[in-house]
Amino acid sequence: MYIFGKNVAKEKITSGEKINKAYISERLNDRDLLTLLKNYHVKYTIVPEKILSSKVDGLHQGIVLDVDDVKTEDFEYIKTIKKDNPIIVMLDHLEDPHNFGAIIRTCEALGIDAIIIPNDRTVNITGTVVKTSAGAIYNVPIVRVTNINTCIKKLKDIGYWIFGTDMDGTDYRELDYNMPVCLIIGNEGKGMSKLVKDNCDYIATIPMSGEINSLNASVATGIILSKIVSR
Amino acid sequence: MYIFGKNVAKEKITSGEKINKAYISERLNDRDLLTLLKNYHVKYTIVPEKILSSKVDGLHQGIVLDVDDVKTEDFEYIKTIKKDNPIIVMLDHLEDPHNFGAIIRTCEALGIDAIIIPNDRTVNITGTVVKTSAGAIYNVPIVRVTNINTCIKKLKDIGYWIFGTDMDGTDYRELDYNMPVCLIIGNEGKGMSKLVKDNCDYIATIPMSGEINSLNASVATGIILSKIVSR
Repeated sequence: MYIFGKNVAKEKITSGEKINKAYISERLNDRDLLTLLKNYHVKYTIVPEKILSSKVDGLHQGIVLDVDDVKTEDFEYIKTIKKDNPIIVMLDHLEDPHNFGAIIRTCEALGIDAIIIPNDRTVNITGTVVKTSAGAIYNVPIVRVTNINTCIKKLKDIGYWIFGTDMDGTDYRELDYNMPVCLIIGNEGKGMSKLVKDNCDYIATIPMSGEINSLNASVATGIILSKIVSR
Repeated sequence: MYIFGKNVAKEKITSGEKINKAYISERLNDRDLLTLLKNYHVKYTIVPEKILSSKVDGLHQGIVLDVDDVKTEDFEYIKTIKKDNPIIVMLDHLEDPHNFGAIIRTCEALGIDAIIIPNDRTVNITGTVVKTSAGAIYNVPIVRVTNINTCIKKLKDIGYWIFGTDMDGTDYRELDYNMPVCLIIGNEGKGMSKLVKDNCDYIATIPMSGEINSLNASVATGIILSKIVSR
């Protein structure tokens, strides 16, 4: 996969992880970055701007790295989390890579233990996701599952309580989160699917007073997670 | 200015506000939208996709409206807010239109009384901002000021307490917000400018446990505002 942008590139280079190839714009004029590439022995090719633009769908800032796909885990990973009350976030068919990236960044900053995503009908882990996450994706375990509802059942079996998010639930400030928590964030437009919602133990709602009455998915996630981690 | 996207367009059309002109893609195949345009007597021109793309820098979804600039207020507006403890958000040279839009949407949903932005060195109110705000910008008063520090002084004079946001302040959950509040959000990269920070009464900090240790500006705003409105 291709990742891009100066900050993401610098972090990847200094991590010492494998970089298959680096592509640099002929216009790149960033001595720090060029020194880094040299010091870490990363092979790079200088190419015209338009070659970089053709590889990625965001602002590449003159550098694109060809790296291995982001490593993901399977459900077994969840069982290895050794903590009293872990907190997991599950994304129910989120669509927007910027939302996905911002949610990963939020989860990393708030110390969330894992993010579960379904294998299909979900935004993929692209360079845009990596960039929007500000590189945080490399610090939060991403768990891929085939079926969200089967996964919910398995989570319940090992002691997790399932908190959905929707407009018609309980004020999120009034719920008790002193337990192993899995918070589900639904699709940007449609929210959680009906079956997923039916499988939730609690539905958390952020009270709103405006006319639009909806929050960006990553902002809503941040608001509820900040309450959960304050338990 | 040009605003775009189906949802934004539908809201603008049904609001009955003035639309100078509508541009529709020759490929647009949305009967609801076409019926709306007809029922509200909005004149439109059918144009090739590329004409629409040349007008805006985001996903236009086949419709672009030419409308008057978003109406903004001056400082006097703040004095007309009749409430016990109003909450105002001030943006100290925010750069990203997506962050600006998401913050407006958050402010609208949480019932914030006004958003103050400086006249220069700040993201402008573009179609992208309108779209990311999901149209919420038409429901939250936007106040433009020439100088942020002068504005802070005037706010203090009329009884507001100034809360900045930074990494080295007090845990935002431990601050008392039972007063007229102005919350300042800094630039995405550089945070608040030094003089603005010095002028704050309190600095609110979101405790973080990750390695990246930063949140998206709109997520951070959502987390702190949700605490303030819960006072």
